[in-house]
Amino acid sequence: MAAEIITDTQSTDDPVDAVFALHRGGKMEVRATVPVRDADDLSLAYTPGVARVCTAIAEQPALVNDYTWKANTVAVVTDGTAVLGLGDIGPEASLPVMEGKAILFKQFGGVDAVPIALACTGVDEIVETVVRLAPSFGGVNLEDISAPRCFEIEKQLQERLDIPVFHDDQHGTAIVTTAALWNAAKVTDRRIGDLRAVISGAGAAGIAIAKMLLAAGIGDVAVCDRRGVVYEGRGDLTDVKAEIAALTNRTGLKGSLADALNGADVFIGVSGGTVPEEAVATMAPGCFIFAMANPTPEIHPEVAHRHAAVVATGRSDFPNQINNVLAFPGIFAGALSVRASRISEGMKLAAAKALAGVVAEELTPQKVIPSPFDERVAPAVTRAVAEAAKAEGLARV
Amino acid sequence: MAAEIITDTQSTDDPVDAVFALHRGGKMEVRATVPVRDADDLSLAYTPGVARVCTAIAEQPALVNDYTWKANTVAVVTDGTAVLGLGDIGPEASLPVMEGKAILFKQFGGVDAVPIALACTGVDEIVETVVRLAPSFGGVNLEDISAPRCFEIEKQLQERLDIPVFHDDQHGTAIVTTAALWNAAKVTDRRIGDLRAVISGAGAAGIAIAKMLLAAGIGDVAVCDRRGVVYEGRGDLTDVKAEIAALTNRTGLKGSLADALNGADVFIGVSGGTVPEEAVATMAPGCFIFAMANPTPEIHPEVAHRHAAVVATGRSDFPNQINNVLAFPGIFAGALSVRASRISEGMKLAAAKALAGVVAEELTPQKVIPSPFDERVAPAVTRAVAEAAKAEGLARV
Repeated sequence: MAAEIITDTQSTDDPVDAVFALHRGGKMEVRATVPVRDADDLSLAYTPGVARVCTAIAEQPALVNDYTWKANTVAVVTDGTAVLGLGDIGPEASLPVMEGKAILFKQFGGVDAVPIALACTGVDEIVETVVRLAPSFGGVNLEDISAPRCFEIEKQLQERLDIPVFHDDQHGTAIVTTAALWNAAKVTDRRIGDLRAVISGAGAAGIAIAKMLLAAGIGDVAVCDRRGVVYEGRGDLTDVKAEIAALTNRTGLKGSLADALNGADVFIGVSGGTVPEEAVATMAPGCFIFAMANPTPEIHPEVAHRHAAVVATGRSDFPNQINNVLAFPGIFAGALSVRASRISEGMKLAAAKALAGVVAEELTPQKVIPSPFDERVAPAVTRAVAEAAKAEGLARV
Repeated sequence: MAAEIITDTQSTDDPVDAVFALHRGGKMEVRATVPVRDADDLSLAYTPGVARVCTAIAEQPALVNDYTWKANTVAVVTDGTAVLGLGDIGPEASLPVMEGKAILFKQFGGVDAVPIALACTGVDEIVETVVRLAPSFGGVNLEDISAPRCFEIEKQLQERLDIPVFHDDQHGTAIVTTAALWNAAKVTDRRIGDLRAVISGAGAAGIAIAKMLLAAGIGDVAVCDRRGVVYEGRGDLTDVKAEIAALTNRTGLKGSLADALNGADVFIGVSGGTVPEEAVATMAPGCFIFAMANPTPEIHPEVAHRHAAVVATGRSDFPNQINNVLAFPGIFAGALSVRASRISEGMKLAAAKALAGVVAEELTPQKVIPSPFDERVAPAVTRAVAEAAKAEGLARV
């Protein structure tokens, strides 16, 4: 069947073929980290030896973190409803992304991760299922679950579990965006508190970015959805948007995204839509444009550069790529390393600060954020997150 | 905390220390099977390339088996209620066993397996949870779930899922026991149809062994629980025991295990109890004694040998070890290799036959079953199971 797909649409030496060839059989495996060569090995790793370890954990439950893979293992949980830009493609079709996520966890954070794509979409069902799975895992990375359910699912799981629960589409994006914004301000000699930002997109990423920018001390931020600026009292707001309306947009802006951009200092695009050049041309001098829609940025970087001092995208083929892989491996590695009970706002801010700090000595407008392959990133984020957890009393070792 | 346990009870160079040392950090990891070295790798294994694979699966769901790890990956699911001989120790304390199982899956069958220890014990909860997890896995190995819930859970999952669901404590044990019995009969020139067997233990293993011996054509079999022989009309039978009473014990035996053993040809112990020598002394001449309780066989093999022509145990330090690892890796490897929709009775019998066949040319009373480390075993079982699935029309490739 694969051959049909490939030969129907592609020649044998183009990138799509390479993609399917690479994916054949999946992208990951499970491996033993102990020998299983003979009966002696088996008597240690399995019966009868293993019974002593089971008994020890039954007597002292925290030992599960010392003597199983739990403490370093994350469930990458999705329901397949908001996969990349593809939307609701279902759990099976989401698996290649979850496997990709899992191997990035390992490659960049040394964290073992297991794709768990669920055949249910109700908030209660997903929450209950993940709670039941939790004994096997040291953390839960929620992935590609559509808004607004993702907010409620994360909140309920955080209340019910004593392990880190982290919706990467929200917080990973927010952390990397905040780091880039800090460095953009620094390289242009601005203060975060003097900046007014406009976010296009009120989904998982947009909401989380708005909250994190507020925590980082942004001057003001307004969030726009398809109907324009989100403001208090707008008649059609969901609970989540009503909450964000109360926290943002202090000057009471109304109208369209273009209206909001007039005089704004920062544009952050996480919408998938497009923004005309006329609109960004009205932004304040020396503005920042983070057009992160993938694969097509809200405004092309070359166009953006005509008006902005700093431009970032979600793409690897332009400077300043806002890529979640800069955050989630180190976030979890740090949280798991100290067995943090959760990932706090302080830990997220510490991650953003550490990420920004990696390129502090080499800042230019074309380098406000490190490359995803910068080997300094994950250790710096891991350390900062672990230290923040300790400082907040959330560490358990 | 680990140090406390060890130093409290053990010197630093004894086997228990070796067990805890080996278990530190767990026994398994996740590994990428594709390179993730640079941006080009990432663009194939992750965005943007991965989106094409997702789209292909969304359009042709069966492609999930070609382009993810699903088709070769098994969930090892437990609720921690019947772990080894330790009983209901809970999900976390069961994890070392589930990890052990997972690495045996890989070592012997090349199958990737993931421990899933659940924080729920209700039949409906477990069934619903596993159904929701199923998109991520090619098969489900149920493990260490107490009877009688294990029977209902397996049955309901088999009805609701189109992937193999296999409770190893039942069928793995039954397959290996049946293989050993076939060879014991062969090496002593007996016919299965002439033998009367007595099974001590009416839990998962005992019930499954009884059913499989019937399928293999045993002359008669009686199952005993703690109250003695299970017979039709006994007032205290669970549904499962009432069903097995109707299928077994054709002569209507009543009374104790010792009563049933009088004149019996085969003793199969899966109870954890003990059997006095006086009782086995009343068995028929040339009888077989499979005393599989671990670590203490129902009757010591040396004592058993005074009365029996063939003796088997569950231990690695005596001849004829009845060990599930002889079955489950090949069972799943075979079923997954042809994407079987389930594991049928025919596939189980084919596995037992293949397992018995491995030592057909080298049979002695001390070798009626291969060693767990016999490298011929898994390939033989895998092939037989795959062929049986094809013959029954259960294969999907």
